[in-house]
Amino acid sequence: MEDKILLAHGSGGKLSHDLLKNTLLRLFDNPLLSKLDDSAVFDFSGRLAFTTDSYVVTPIFFPGGDIGKLAVCGTVNDLSMAGATPLYLSLSLIIEEGFPMADLENILLSILKATEDAAVKIIAGDTKVVHRGNADKIFINTSGVGLVPNGLEISSCNARVGDKIILSGTIGEHGIALLGQREGLRFEPPLQSDCAPLNSLVNEMIEVSKNIHCLRDPTRGGLASALNEFAESSNVGIRIDEEAIPIQSAVQAVCELMGFDPLHIANEGKLVALVVPQDADKVLARMRQNRYGEQARIIGEVVPEHPRKVVMKTPLGTSRILDMLTGELLPRIC
Amino acid sequence: MEDKILLAHGSGGKLSHDLLKNTLLRLFDNPLLSKLDDSAVFDFSGRLAFTTDSYVVTPIFFPGGDIGKLAVCGTVNDLSMAGATPLYLSLSLIIEEGFPMADLENILLSILKATEDAAVKIIAGDTKVVHRGNADKIFINTSGVGLVPNGLEISSCNARVGDKIILSGTIGEHGIALLGQREGLRFEPPLQSDCAPLNSLVNEMIEVSKNIHCLRDPTRGGLASALNEFAESSNVGIRIDEEAIPIQSAVQAVCELMGFDPLHIANEGKLVALVVPQDADKVLARMRQNRYGEQARIIGEVVPEHPRKVVMKTPLGTSRILDMLTGELLPRIC
Repeated sequence: MEDKILLAHGSGGKLSHDLLKNTLLRLFDNPLLSKLDDSAVFDFSGRLAFTTDSYVVTPIFFPGGDIGKLAVCGTVNDLSMAGATPLYLSLSLIIEEGFPMADLENILLSILKATEDAAVKIIAGDTKVVHRGNADKIFINTSGVGLVPNGLEISSCNARVGDKIILSGTIGEHGIALLGQREGLRFEPPLQSDCAPLNSLVNEMIEVSKNIHCLRDPTRGGLASALNEFAESSNVGIRIDEEAIPIQSAVQAVCELMGFDPLHIANEGKLVALVVPQDADKVLARMRQNRYGEQARIIGEVVPEHPRKVVMKTPLGTSRILDMLTGELLPRIC
Repeated sequence: MEDKILLAHGSGGKLSHDLLKNTLLRLFDNPLLSKLDDSAVFDFSGRLAFTTDSYVVTPIFFPGGDIGKLAVCGTVNDLSMAGATPLYLSLSLIIEEGFPMADLENILLSILKATEDAAVKIIAGDTKVVHRGNADKIFINTSGVGLVPNGLEISSCNARVGDKIILSGTIGEHGIALLGQREGLRFEPPLQSDCAPLNSLVNEMIEVSKNIHCLRDPTRGGLASALNEFAESSNVGIRIDEEAIPIQSAVQAVCELMGFDPLHIANEGKLVALVVPQDADKVLARMRQNRYGEQARIIGEVVPEHPRKVVMKTPLGTSRILDMLTGELLPRIC
């Protein structure tokens, strides 16, 4: 077996076939994938959620994860944010010629572990290889399908005045952990990406309330962009309390040092939910029992004032408008 | 509006949002996509086909198409090869910083036209931007879902002894058109990629016969690799007649000149079908009425001899084993 990826691994011929049989199928074997047809076919009945994301994160191995774990968790989370139970993923690799086979194996093992954690299966895939210098190591696309339970109407345009805004935990770890890795910063205690599959958390939330109006995992653009999207799509005002937002001290320190707003930093294992006020406490209580929601708290509410704007009350008692991220703080964070 | 893609177009913040609203949504507006949620949600009941492919073709504009048209047709065809009616696609872009906005617009217009031709809608998407030099212009992933009619059992493992092998038309145009573009070759008449959506052709084939056992669009690896995959997956022998395989003279000439086997060259608008013998003639007749099957013909059959091998009778009356492509003839053909 070759120890580096060759162009011929993307040829559709013998080496492609060998890579598929000896590596991908060995790890991800299941009846749908192993037929090796152009499409996977399965029976489905109900409300189907469908999503896609390409992952170009750099570095590809980072504290708390790697591009493989991220590619599974990111797409699982996008399905979860529709309230869906994730079922199946596709996995499409774009690999730079010369990429070490050992790194590919490690990424695939990480993908396997993440799919097991999230209880999803990979049933379709594709591998392309480009010349050295025509891509940076490896890019991964995962698309996914899931089943949305009946009775849910979760959408960024469904925010209603009075909804409580629940944040599942501390913000900014993914972005700052990546920045730290790139810049050679050391954190004590070590700072890790929060990269995690949120489907179990969402599943438990919808067990206790069908009245969750909006859900989003604040990745690129951070919490501020997610809240602005809710405000704009639903034509409502959003008011949050800065003091209520939990932030790890290392994240806070780096943001102060570098002039970043932690509300603009990417997360990969957090969610923000807008919930009818009468259900907010029971949703919150249930979230705190899940390992990914232990630090959940209410950080604000939807208000009739200032439609399409997010306003944050500062610890000084003043208020400021919280904008979407402009420019680019940290390229290739996901 | 910027005239080049900036890193901030992939930030998840304001410029991402503007690109999405002003360009992508303007072109692809539909109720599922325009909600801008993390997943698209729709009702589905039946047998679902799911597939993915990433496209890294170079050059991105080529005779007969571009990376956008290819990305739609390729995934539409992968769904069609399961017998499915393609319904919805996702569209995920990885763009190099500095990529001309005008080229992006042209690619997106081409995607729009191809989705209209194939009667599919784009309902989910993602855009990533990487630093200059970290990708080669643009890579596109499309994933897709489709509905498989009842009564079909199409799979590469379903070939049966006696099945007739039908090829929908001339082979090798896509690969040789790209090679010509890269090498500055001129063809008279001009040679174009065969890039085309095959869903209408497949739809008409299954109208006249439910006894189609295998279907494949012979892309990377060419017709030889597709037939070898059928032989291996179904544990049968395949015998074809070289003289029956239609090849344009320009493709034949370039292959002879460069020592390529046209059966190893990629196609993007052809299919090969294995059909029970009693239905072969009526399937063939129907195919010839479709613009993408006018030159369809029977090129061979499934035989009990030499299981897992493809044997080709040459015009000299001799036979040779037709192997999968080894090595890589033409990198980044799709």
